[in-house]
Amino acid sequence: MIITTINELRTYLDSQRKSGKAIGLVPTMGFLHEGHLSLIRRAKADNDIVVVSDFVNPTQFAPNEDFESYPRNIERDEQLATGAGADVIFYPSVEEMYPAGSSTFVEVVGEITKVLCGASRPSHFRGVTTVVTMLFNIVQPNRAYFGQKDAQQAAVLIKMANDLHMNIELIVCPIVREANGLAMSSRNTYLSANERTQAVVLNQALLEAKSAFENGETDVQKLIGIISGKINEMPLADIDYVNIYEYPSLKTTKEIGAKALAAVAVKFGKTRLIDNIILKNKCN
Amino acid sequence: MIITTINELRTYLDSQRKSGKAIGLVPTMGFLHEGHLSLIRRAKADNDIVVVSDFVNPTQFAPNEDFESYPRNIERDEQLATGAGADVIFYPSVEEMYPAGSSTFVEVVGEITKVLCGASRPSHFRGVTTVVTMLFNIVQPNRAYFGQKDAQQAAVLIKMANDLHMNIELIVCPIVREANGLAMSSRNTYLSANERTQAVVLNQALLEAKSAFENGETDVQKLIGIISGKINEMPLADIDYVNIYEYPSLKTTKEIGAKALAAVAVKFGKTRLIDNIILKNKCN
Repeated sequence: MIITTINELRTYLDSQRKSGKAIGLVPTMGFLHEGHLSLIRRAKADNDIVVVSDFVNPTQFAPNEDFESYPRNIERDEQLATGAGADVIFYPSVEEMYPAGSSTFVEVVGEITKVLCGASRPSHFRGVTTVVTMLFNIVQPNRAYFGQKDAQQAAVLIKMANDLHMNIELIVCPIVREANGLAMSSRNTYLSANERTQAVVLNQALLEAKSAFENGETDVQKLIGIISGKINEMPLADIDYVNIYEYPSLKTTKEIGAKALAAVAVKFGKTRLIDNIILKNKCN
Repeated sequence: MIITTINELRTYLDSQRKSGKAIGLVPTMGFLHEGHLSLIRRAKADNDIVVVSDFVNPTQFAPNEDFESYPRNIERDEQLATGAGADVIFYPSVEEMYPAGSSTFVEVVGEITKVLCGASRPSHFRGVTTVVTMLFNIVQPNRAYFGQKDAQQAAVLIKMANDLHMNIELIVCPIVREANGLAMSSRNTYLSANERTQAVVLNQALLEAKSAFENGETDVQKLIGIISGKINEMPLADIDYVNIYEYPSLKTTKEIGAKALAAVAVKFGKTRLIDNIILKNKCN
């Protein structure tokens, strides 16, 4: 069932809540893939009612980014989401979410939103935290589900929810990959055949770093070197960043302690892909 | 009943909500006066359970302002609030609301937060919208009550709640005044006897403007002149601002249309007092 207005969605959810149903929310920008579907399945396992929001959020795109061309296909999304257990697809217009004159923002300030994607996309996370707050206020879910693929986004949203005392459990689910290791992304649809083949290097490079880490390498610069070196073997790869931070604080570190995030953003032609891996000390 | 922790308050309110009780929230910074009590009484009339938050919020004070010296008296507040119908006084520590590392803010951008008090207190409203969002997330009330005394704050909070699709009804209640017309304020306690006598001019000046408006004067500059002239008759009065804006948008106007806010901030010694009046065209 597709619902396009906030009022209609609230009416439906209020009646569900009154009969004691637990509500799970899976926020997406649509063009669903197996990664999204894994979140929907998990949400359905944990809750009675699953709402999938399907909204390409303009405030998280910079003017030079791909808001207009971002892939959309609501009919396909409805079929896939329903098949995975969604009860409602919330598919609002931009005007429904941001009526004329809308000017309120939720922002997590500090390193956590300035490093990695925050460096090259300075207003991105403000758009994400604002729209997710809106979705939380509209759906008032018991639990909300996010992918580890967007590791920084997940860390930022967990910090936002904690800082603002939101009464919602945030659950982060593992990255889903294609058979060759490429992380699932709606933006993979932009890739040419050649780019797609070479993009497999992201996962390979991260796995090499993980292997080196597990063999005792804890020096962040050396691990970054391993990842960058591997990615640069691919002629079509144009690195935006390769970095390693403590996780989930995203604080700078020279040596990996208990838990770190190795994250990359790499352009293949016009397509910017991200991937990451958690480096976790088994002794902790 | 005083509750100091978020967890304890949530446990109490969850059980009330499950038995179908409607919850009203009255956010205050404590040192309650008749203005606050009027909000509590209204909240009790509208709801089953009334939570009064009593928290001097550091993020809405600038470093040079009166956060440290702001008057506090929780025993007196408990007695007064309970007498007016409060079921719970939520009295958290600063660390309970803002744990170490807290760095998420809610901000309404635009003219509405830049004019009037926003001009002389540039980070004030960001602190207000952030703490009120926290309180909304903690209490999850059906309704929340604010005083028209802080007219700009009320307009900003209504805009925030609308923009972020908060599922809470915001109710703004009339200014409560002492017999001589001085608007009730916790900061009135700072005033010397002389200052208190002269502070009555705020209300008098606003009433003069209202009278002129009702006699046909719609020119904003002329009305501002009437208010400033009257206030300046008092030797201890030091005007921060006198201004008139469309209400509730707080947009600049030269001629009063359907509804405007005449607002003043005036220092008497170290004490900054605010007051306001709505100028409403009876034909609209």
